[in-house]
Amino acid sequence: MASMIFTDCSPSTTAARLLPFSHSRLRSNCSSFFIRRLVGPHHVGTTSLRATLGVHSSSSSSHVIKATMSTEASAKIIDGKAVAKQIRDEITAEVSRMKDAIGVVPGLAVILVGDRKDSATYVRNKKKACDSVGINSFEVHLPEDSSEHEVLKFISGFNDDPSIHGILVQLPLPSHMNEQNVLNAVSLEKDVDGFHPLNIGRLAMRGREPLFVPCTPKGCIELLHRYDIDIKGKKAVVIGRSNIVGMPAALLLQREDATISIVHSRTKNPEKITKQADIIISAVGQPNMVRGSWIKPGAVIIDVGINPVEDAKSPRGYRLVGDVCYEEACQVASAITPVPGGVGPMTIAMLLSNTVSSAKRAHNFQ
Amino acid sequence: MASMIFTDCSPSTTAARLLPFSHSRLRSNCSSFFIRRLVGPHHVGTTSLRATLGVHSSSSSSHVIKATMSTEASAKIIDGKAVAKQIRDEITAEVSRMKDAIGVVPGLAVILVGDRKDSATYVRNKKKACDSVGINSFEVHLPEDSSEHEVLKFISGFNDDPSIHGILVQLPLPSHMNEQNVLNAVSLEKDVDGFHPLNIGRLAMRGREPLFVPCTPKGCIELLHRYDIDIKGKKAVVIGRSNIVGMPAALLLQREDATISIVHSRTKNPEKITKQADIIISAVGQPNMVRGSWIKPGAVIIDVGINPVEDAKSPRGYRLVGDVCYEEACQVASAITPVPGGVGPMTIAMLLSNTVSSAKRAHNFQ
Repeated sequence: MASMIFTDCSPSTTAARLLPFSHSRLRSNCSSFFIRRLVGPHHVGTTSLRATLGVHSSSSSSHVIKATMSTEASAKIIDGKAVAKQIRDEITAEVSRMKDAIGVVPGLAVILVGDRKDSATYVRNKKKACDSVGINSFEVHLPEDSSEHEVLKFISGFNDDPSIHGILVQLPLPSHMNEQNVLNAVSLEKDVDGFHPLNIGRLAMRGREPLFVPCTPKGCIELLHRYDIDIKGKKAVVIGRSNIVGMPAALLLQREDATISIVHSRTKNPEKITKQADIIISAVGQPNMVRGSWIKPGAVIIDVGINPVEDAKSPRGYRLVGDVCYEEACQVASAITPVPGGVGPMTIAMLLSNTVSSAKRAHNFQ
Repeated sequence: MASMIFTDCSPSTTAARLLPFSHSRLRSNCSSFFIRRLVGPHHVGTTSLRATLGVHSSSSSSHVIKATMSTEASAKIIDGKAVAKQIRDEITAEVSRMKDAIGVVPGLAVILVGDRKDSATYVRNKKKACDSVGINSFEVHLPEDSSEHEVLKFISGFNDDPSIHGILVQLPLPSHMNEQNVLNAVSLEKDVDGFHPLNIGRLAMRGREPLFVPCTPKGCIELLHRYDIDIKGKKAVVIGRSNIVGMPAALLLQREDATISIVHSRTKNPEKITKQADIIISAVGQPNMVRGSWIKPGAVIIDVGINPVEDAKSPRGYRLVGDVCYEEACQVASAITPVPGGVGPMTIAMLLSNTVSSAKRAHNFQ
C-alpha cells in the first residue's frame, strides 16, 4: 500500500495545484472543482445547516440530520463542523443543567510535557473548547526533561481529585518516558481518551460496555448517526488499524452490526476490498490514497486523515487533504466528510462529551 | 444467515444419512465420501503423522508439519488430534524440565458449579489432560444452588494460592449467578482462559501483549502455524463474532497481518464474502452452514463448530459435524480440519500450554 501514496489526485496533472481556489473554496463543493462553479462554504451555523441539509424537524430523534441530494451528481457533504457545533450546544445545556441541579461542574485535566508546537496548539484548542461549553479545564505544562515520576505524580493527584472527571495526557510524550506506563496510570474512571486496554477489551466484547469510547472513532460513528446513515447489515471497510482510530472504529462498527473488513499496510489489493464497502472509514495518514476507483457508487466516506501537502497557492505554502481523493470521491460516493471540517471538529466534541458523561457517572446524575 | 442452517449438505438427499460409513470413516478422507473408497483414519500417532503428512525433518522450525497433497483432488486434512498430541508431548517435557530445575509443578484449578453432564465431561477431560502432562489439577465441585459468594470465595483462595497458576470457571454458570462478576474475580495473572477484558484489550491493541490468549482461537492459529500455512497478507474471513472464539480469532489473525473480515448473523451475502477468503475460521455452531460454493478454490478451512446432527446409523443416534459441509469443502479447499478431531483437541492443549506459561511467568523460568 506504501506505493500508493499520492499528494495530488486530480485527473489532470495540473489540476489541484494550479486551480485558483482558496482553501475554503476547495472543500466547499467537490463537483465545483470540476465544473468551475463556486458555491458557498458548507461550514455554516445550525440555522443554515437546517436550510442546507434539511434537518428532520419531524424526526423522532431530534438530532438526526438528513442531507438532501444536490441537483448535481455530487456527494452530500457530511459537515463535521456543523455537527460538532450542534453537539457542543447540547453539552453546554447539559453542563448548565447539571450545575443547576447538583452544583457540580465537569472538570478536565490536560497534561502537556515539552514544547512541541502542535501539541501546544491541541491543548490550547481543548482548553478553549472546554471554556466554550462551561467545563472547567486544568492544565499542567511540564518541561521536556521532566521525569516520568513527575508526570505520574500529577496523574495520581488528578486521579484523587473529585473535581476532575477526565484526565488527558497529550501525546506524544518525550522519548525518555514509557507511554504505556503513563497512560495506564490514569484512573479507568477518568480515562476520557478511552485508550485503556480494559476499555478497548470491553469495546471488543459483546455484552460488555466500555466506560469511554476513544474520541475520534466515536466522532466518526456519531457523524453517521447524525446523518441518519444506516450501519446495521452494511459492509464497512476500515482503512488503517491504529490503536486510537482504525481498530476501535472497526469494533464500533461491528457493535452496530456492520460487516467489517480491515485494510492495512499488509493488505493485498486494498482497492478491491475497499470497493465493496457501503461505508469507508479511512485513517492511515496517506494523502489522497483512496482514489475514486476504490469507491463503490453510493458509498459513504468518513475521512479521518488530515495530511499537509505542498500548495504554493496557499498563503501557508501547504494545504490539508484527507486520505481520500476528495474531488474524485465526490463523483462516486453518496456522502463524504471534507478535510478539514469533517471528522476533525468531532474529536474535541467527543472529548467534551466523554468528560460530561464521566462527571454524570461519578455523581450518579441522569 | 439463520435461514442457511443445514443438518445435511450432501449433493444427493440421501447421501450423509444413508451411506454406511462409520463416524470415524466419515472424516477419514473426504473424497472417499464421493468415490466410495475407504481409507484409514488420519487420527494417528506422531510416527504415522510424519509418514502421512511429511513432517519437515529439515525444517529450521522443528514443529512445522507440511501436509503433502493427496493424489486425489481432495483437501489436506489438518489433523488436530495429532498436533494436540505433539503439543502435549512438548508440554510434558517442559513440565518435567521445570520440576527438575526449580522444583515447581504447574497447577490448574477448575471450578464446576451444578450438575450439567456436558460440563462434568469437559472438567473430567481437562483433569485427565493435566494428569497426562504432569500438571497438578485441583477441582472444586459446588452444588447448583451455591451462592455467587461461595464461588467468589473459592476463586479468591485460588488467587492467593502460589501452587495454582491457572483458574478456570466452567461455563455456563447457574442462571442466578452473574457470570461477569465471577470471571472478573479471577486474577489476571491466572486467567488461563484469556477471557478477561484486559487481556482482550491487549490482544486488540498493537504493541501490547495479552498475558493469555483464549484457548480455542489460539488453537486455530497454532494449527495454521504447525501446518506452515502463511497468514501474513492473506485474506481471512472469520464466521461468528463470539467473545470466546470469533472475535479473538479475528484479532489474532490481524496481529499476524491477515486482512480480516468478520461475517455474522447480520451479514448480507455471507457466502460472497466468505468466498474471497484464503483462510476461513468458522465458529457459529450451525451444522453444515458453509457450503462448497462458499469456498474459494485452495482456501484453508478451520472449522470450530461441533454440532450434533441426527444419524440413525450411528450407535448414539447422532453424529458430530462442523459448521462447514465437510465433504463439499474437501473438493474445493486446499486444507481443512475435520470435526471431530480438528480444533477440538487443540483447545485443551492450549489450556495446558497457558497454564505452563503462567507457571513459568510466576517463577520467572525461561
